[in-house]
Amino acid sequence: MSESLTGNVLVAQSGGPTSVINASLAGVITEALNHDCIEEIYGGLNGIQGILNEEFIDLAEESQQTIRGLRHTPAAALGTCRYKMKPSDLERILEVFHAHNIRFFFYIGGNDSQDTTDQICKYAEEQGYDLKAIGIPKTIDNDLPITDHCPGYGSVIKYVATTVQEMALDHAAIGNHDFVSIVEVMGRNAGWIAAGATLAKGRSQDANAAPHLIYLPEVPLSPEKFLEDVQNVLKTEKYCMVVVSEGVTDGNGNYLGQASSATDAFGHSQLGGVGEYLRALVEQSLEIKARSAKLGINQRAAAHCSSETDNNEAFMCGQAAVQAAMAGQTDKMVTLVRSEADRYACETSLTPLSDVANEVKTIPSNWINETQTGVAYPFYKYALPLVEGEVQVPYEQGMPNFVKLAKNPVEKRLETYAMA
Amino acid sequence: MSESLTGNVLVAQSGGPTSVINASLAGVITEALNHDCIEEIYGGLNGIQGILNEEFIDLAEESQQTIRGLRHTPAAALGTCRYKMKPSDLERILEVFHAHNIRFFFYIGGNDSQDTTDQICKYAEEQGYDLKAIGIPKTIDNDLPITDHCPGYGSVIKYVATTVQEMALDHAAIGNHDFVSIVEVMGRNAGWIAAGATLAKGRSQDANAAPHLIYLPEVPLSPEKFLEDVQNVLKTEKYCMVVVSEGVTDGNGNYLGQASSATDAFGHSQLGGVGEYLRALVEQSLEIKARSAKLGINQRAAAHCSSETDNNEAFMCGQAAVQAAMAGQTDKMVTLVRSEADRYACETSLTPLSDVANEVKTIPSNWINETQTGVAYPFYKYALPLVEGEVQVPYEQGMPNFVKLAKNPVEKRLETYAMA
Repeated sequence: MSESLTGNVLVAQSGGPTSVINASLAGVITEALNHDCIEEIYGGLNGIQGILNEEFIDLAEESQQTIRGLRHTPAAALGTCRYKMKPSDLERILEVFHAHNIRFFFYIGGNDSQDTTDQICKYAEEQGYDLKAIGIPKTIDNDLPITDHCPGYGSVIKYVATTVQEMALDHAAIGNHDFVSIVEVMGRNAGWIAAGATLAKGRSQDANAAPHLIYLPEVPLSPEKFLEDVQNVLKTEKYCMVVVSEGVTDGNGNYLGQASSATDAFGHSQLGGVGEYLRALVEQSLEIKARSAKLGINQRAAAHCSSETDNNEAFMCGQAAVQAAMAGQTDKMVTLVRSEADRYACETSLTPLSDVANEVKTIPSNWINETQTGVAYPFYKYALPLVEGEVQVPYEQGMPNFVKLAKNPVEKRLETYAMA
Repeated sequence: MSESLTGNVLVAQSGGPTSVINASLAGVITEALNHDCIEEIYGGLNGIQGILNEEFIDLAEESQQTIRGLRHTPAAALGTCRYKMKPSDLERILEVFHAHNIRFFFYIGGNDSQDTTDQICKYAEEQGYDLKAIGIPKTIDNDLPITDHCPGYGSVIKYVATTVQEMALDHAAIGNHDFVSIVEVMGRNAGWIAAGATLAKGRSQDANAAPHLIYLPEVPLSPEKFLEDVQNVLKTEKYCMVVVSEGVTDGNGNYLGQASSATDAFGHSQLGGVGEYLRALVEQSLEIKARSAKLGINQRAAAHCSSETDNNEAFMCGQAAVQAAMAGQTDKMVTLVRSEADRYACETSLTPLSDVANEVKTIPSNWINETQTGVAYPFYKYALPLVEGEVQVPYEQGMPNFVKLAKNPVEKRLETYAMA
C-alpha cells in the first residue's frame, strides 16, 4: 500500500482539448486535497513539454472559485501539447520528478498520452523510483479501448447533434427542393462523432428525418454509392442532410477529398476536405445545389452546450485516478464501466495502460445500419444517455463566465533541458 | 380607425431564418387572439411564394403548447423564400387576399421583404382594397435603417462571440506559437455580426485579448495591411485570432477571396472564401501556420445559445405589429427604440416601409477603431445589452425540444397560379 508513500502530485493535460477536460483536472485537485500523504499539487504546463522544461504551477494556490469554475471551462487550462516523446526524454522526466519529489502523476489525455504515461511508469520502475502514475481518459474521438466511452464524447455529440438539428430546421424552412447539405465533423479513425449526429433524428430514429445519411471511417465510401444514396433520399425528401467523418476513405486507404499529404508530429495525416469534396461531387454529377459546412474546433470547445452526464463523469475520472494512486495502483488508466441495469449508470474501474496505449476502438459493425448510411439501434441506445443533462454554465453580461488559472510558478531546480 | 374593419390575419416569414423569427410569429398569434375584429389567423407557407399559391394554414388550430414552443424554436416555422416579386404578382396577391378576406397582413423579414410589403400596401390602396399591412423586422445582419437594431441580431452575436471565446481558449491551450486562426462570419454589406465578436474580449475590450483583429465590409482591406496587422499581434501574442465578415472587399468593389460570380435571386453575390483566402495568404506570405473556420448557417439557427433580450424583443415586435394594425396603421414597419436612460430598455415604434425598404445600415465610422482592426467603445456599449440573458430552451433526453406546426391547410378558393 502506498498510503505510506508521501510526496507531491503532478497533473498535466495532453492532446486536443475537450469541453470537459478541465472537469477531470478539477476532480484530481479536489480529491488530492483529501489525502495527507499528498504535500503539494502541481500542474505541469503544456503536457510533457512543460514537464521536460520543469514548467510547474502551484494548483493549491488557486482560489476555490477558480477550481469550481474549471468544471465548466473548456480547453486545457494547463495548456496541452502534441509532443512525441523521445526515449532520451524519459531520463529527464525522472530527474524532474525526483527534483520536485513527484510521487503521484496524473496525465489526462487520449491514446498517445496513455502510451507516454505507460513509458514513464515502466522507466520509473526500472530505475527503482517509487511512482504511482494513472492515466485519465479524455478524447472527443471516443476511440480508447476497454472504457465504455471517453470523457469529452458525450459533450461533443450533444453539440454536433444539436447543431445538426438546428441546421435541419433551417434547411426545412427554406423553400428549395433538391438541396444537399453536408456537415463534416471530426473523427480520423473512428466514426463515433459522426454517428452521434443520429441523435438529431430524435426518438423515432426515422430514416426520413435529418440527418438522412451518416458516413463513418469504418465503412469505405465510393462516389457512386454516395450519389445513389443522395438520390434515394431526394425521392421522398425535399432536402438531403449528410453528416460525414473527416476520416472516411475510399477503401484503398485514401481519405476522400484529402487536401494534402501533410502529417502531424505523430505521423497522423492532417485532414480536411471530405465535406467540400462531396459537395462538389453532388453539384457536378447531379446538378443539384449543395452546401458544405465543416464544424471546426468549436466541436471540442463548446462548453456552452456540454453534457452534464459527461461533465460529471469527467470529474469522477479525475477523482478516481487519485483514489487509485492512493490505493497503490500505478501504470493504469481509469475506465468507465456501464451498469447492466436498464437505467443508465456508470462507475469507474482500472485497466493496464499497455492495454490502452495506441489502440483504437472503432464502431462495431452490427451498430451500423444495413444500407451503411447510418447507425443501428444499439448505437442509439449506447449514445443517448451520454448527452443527458445540461451543464449550467454561469453567464455574466450575456457571455459565459469562464475561468483562467492564476498560474503561480513553482521554482525550477534543474538546468535548462535541450529539447530534441 | 380600423377597429371597424373585420377580417382575417395573414402572417408569413421571409428571407434567411433567425433563431428568434418564430418568437415574432408567436407574438403575432398571441396578440391576434386578443382582438374581436380578427376572425381567422392564417399562416402563409414559404413567404410570398405560398401566398401566390394560396398555401395557407390555420394557426388558431395549433395547440397552445406548439405556439409556446415557437418562442424557442429556430428557423422559420412557416417556411420562407427568397422570391423576387414580379409586378404581375401584385394582382394575384390581392385576388388571394380578397378570396380569403385577408385584412391584416404581417410579413416578418429583412430589407427585401419590407419592400415587398410596401408594394402590396401601395397596390391595395390603388385598388381600393382596405388592408392594414405591417412589416416586422428580422435579420441577423442588423442592417435595417431607423430601428435601433433588428430581432435576430442579439442572438447571432451571442452565439458568434461565445464560439469565438471558446475557440480562443482552445487556441491558448495548444502550445503552438505563431498560429493564426481565422473565423469567417456572415455579413454581406455590413459588419454588424463580425463586430459583435468583440464581446468575446470581455469587459476590458483589451486589444491583446482574442479576437485580436476584426475586419468589416465597412473598411476595405488590402493583403499588405492584413499581413502587417497579423505580424503586429504576433509580436506580443502567441496566436492571432481574426474574425472577418464574408463581405470584406479590396476597396475596388471586389470581395476578397470571392469563389465565384454566382448571384442569388436578388442579384446579391453568393459569397464564400475570404477566411480561406486570408488563411492561404498567411501561410504563403508569412510561413506561419493558419487555420480558417467558416461559421455556417448554424449562426442563424443556434437557438440553444440565443439571447433572452433578443427573444423577448422579437416577440414584442410581433405583438406591436398587430396592435398597430388594430389602431389603423398600415404600410409601416415596427422599429425598436432604445431608451436614453443608462439602464438598457427598448420599446417599439413605427416607421414608413418606404423609408426602410432596400436601405442598408452600416456601422458608423466612429464606431470602428483607429487602426481599423476592430470596433470602438460606442459599439461595445451598443451591443452588450443585446446579448443579455439566456433563453431556457427545454431539453428532452439531452436534446433541445423544438416544435413543429401541425399545418392544417386552409381550403384553396382560386385557380392555380402560374408562377413566372
